[in-house]
Amino acid sequence: MADNQNVADRIDGHTILIGLMAYPIRHSMSPTMHNTSFVKLGLNYAYLAFEVGNKELPNAIQAIRSLGMRGSNISMPNKQKVIPLLDKLDPVAKMVGAVNTIVNDNGVLTGYTTDGTGFMKSLEDENLDITGEKMTISGAGGAGTAVAIQAATDGVKEMSLFNIRDAEWENAKRNVDIINKNTDCKATLYDLADQDAFKRELADSRIYCDATGVGMKPLEDKTLVSDPSWFHKDMIVYDTVYAPRTTKLMTVAQEAGVDHVFNGLGMMLEQGAEAFKLWTGEDMPVDYIRDLLFSEDPSKVKN
Amino acid sequence: MADNQNVADRIDGHTILIGLMAYPIRHSMSPTMHNTSFVKLGLNYAYLAFEVGNKELPNAIQAIRSLGMRGSNISMPNKQKVIPLLDKLDPVAKMVGAVNTIVNDNGVLTGYTTDGTGFMKSLEDENLDITGEKMTISGAGGAGTAVAIQAATDGVKEMSLFNIRDAEWENAKRNVDIINKNTDCKATLYDLADQDAFKRELADSRIYCDATGVGMKPLEDKTLVSDPSWFHKDMIVYDTVYAPRTTKLMTVAQEAGVDHVFNGLGMMLEQGAEAFKLWTGEDMPVDYIRDLLFSEDPSKVKN
Repeated sequence: MADNQNVADRIDGHTILIGLMAYPIRHSMSPTMHNTSFVKLGLNYAYLAFEVGNKELPNAIQAIRSLGMRGSNISMPNKQKVIPLLDKLDPVAKMVGAVNTIVNDNGVLTGYTTDGTGFMKSLEDENLDITGEKMTISGAGGAGTAVAIQAATDGVKEMSLFNIRDAEWENAKRNVDIINKNTDCKATLYDLADQDAFKRELADSRIYCDATGVGMKPLEDKTLVSDPSWFHKDMIVYDTVYAPRTTKLMTVAQEAGVDHVFNGLGMMLEQGAEAFKLWTGEDMPVDYIRDLLFSEDPSKVKN
Repeated sequence: MADNQNVADRIDGHTILIGLMAYPIRHSMSPTMHNTSFVKLGLNYAYLAFEVGNKELPNAIQAIRSLGMRGSNISMPNKQKVIPLLDKLDPVAKMVGAVNTIVNDNGVLTGYTTDGTGFMKSLEDENLDITGEKMTISGAGGAGTAVAIQAATDGVKEMSLFNIRDAEWENAKRNVDIINKNTDCKATLYDLADQDAFKRELADSRIYCDATGVGMKPLEDKTLVSDPSWFHKDMIVYDTVYAPRTTKLMTVAQEAGVDHVFNGLGMMLEQGAEAFKLWTGEDMPVDYIRDLLFSEDPSKVKN
């Protein structure tokens, strides 16, 4: 019944807007995920994507207040730049230094990060436990930082973090410092240009997570690991990218016979479920949405 | 087929937002009108109402640019205050001094008014022609000004404009001046407190239009004319209010046996159709929407 509602019966003068501010963003599955959940639960919200970069961000954040939006998701390139524009910061978001979810309570904007808990929850969904294990992770942007700090907080024993010497190098150093100071995890930073180190650290890691965004359009032909021999069978290879469904990195891991190869859909689903809860107070119908998003039926899958 | 689309199949990462900025606004039928038309024509827009008053208006207008919205409708109390916030003004909107529609072309905002043409079009839809006739009108806000100036421009011969001596009195004087200087219509301003004049002017008017908003919730028990004897059978009584469907003024006119009694739905429909055309380049499916909005089926009618 609710699934077949006409949109005109759903969006009325009472409908409240929730946004997604990022660039690029048109390929995102988040609008489908959240709007389908609203319809399923009969909640009067609409979730729309907005092409917002760093330049438009201050006015776009102010729009949350002036349009009375319930909140917004924040994605690249705004996850860190958004922090000074908010009124309050959740303690975990503060440690991560990145925000992917904003909640508007009567004009007071609070920033949260649900990427890290979403990542860990998605492993739990697959009955995989990485506590006490070694993790290699590449990337120190919003998602990479959230994953690294949450994994260390949740009990990963050793972490090797790789990054190129770009603008995020300082952030990568900061992440390692925060982990070593605040958790029982021993973290080490490596330059991604040191390919010998990269190969060596992967060799005894239980999990490799690529949080760089390499592999996503228009970089869909790129991967940080192109030699299958760098992977081993009993590991987890996790790409935070979900468009395309199978990244070049995942193809290499599959060639290596790796047991557990994941794209970013599970993380996307679980970070969305937590944001959904923050905005609406309701549980996202996760199984229903997972079936929809993971479906291979091309009429359901959107890129 | 299109009517039964699931909202999740319709709102995706490509959906473009169009707004309605006013206060109060939750009762508006515009979201239903526009979203139903988008679904019917397969256009990827979503139209949402935002509670925006004068204070929030500058930031809300900036949000049109920063969120890449296609545009917005503007209603009370913002129709005049919005003008200095725009980049361009349509010549008719400039004469009227009010804007009800904004179009965003790559960050350049142009203001239009479609209230006056919507009013005249709604009479045309009923095969009523008021050119060469006398009109009495009350109210000199955004809608009242647009109706008066458009009617005078289109050939109404004589116009008696009534207003109380509130903040809009100066605007009422301005409207009369503009009509007398720019059109062949002879316009006269009266204080609404002069009830003898009001009764006298109504007596030989072909049409009375109440554009004050009196009769709309929470003033649904109020009317500027409570004595049916002030009306005559062969006239038109037109209330720009459409919630409730039958205002107190309309009840008085019906008691007087007036031939043509209208609420503001026709005007709302036609002003919407013109805005729709400006945003999408497409014709609103007016007959389909009229049937939906004028329907007495309570499942279709929203207040």
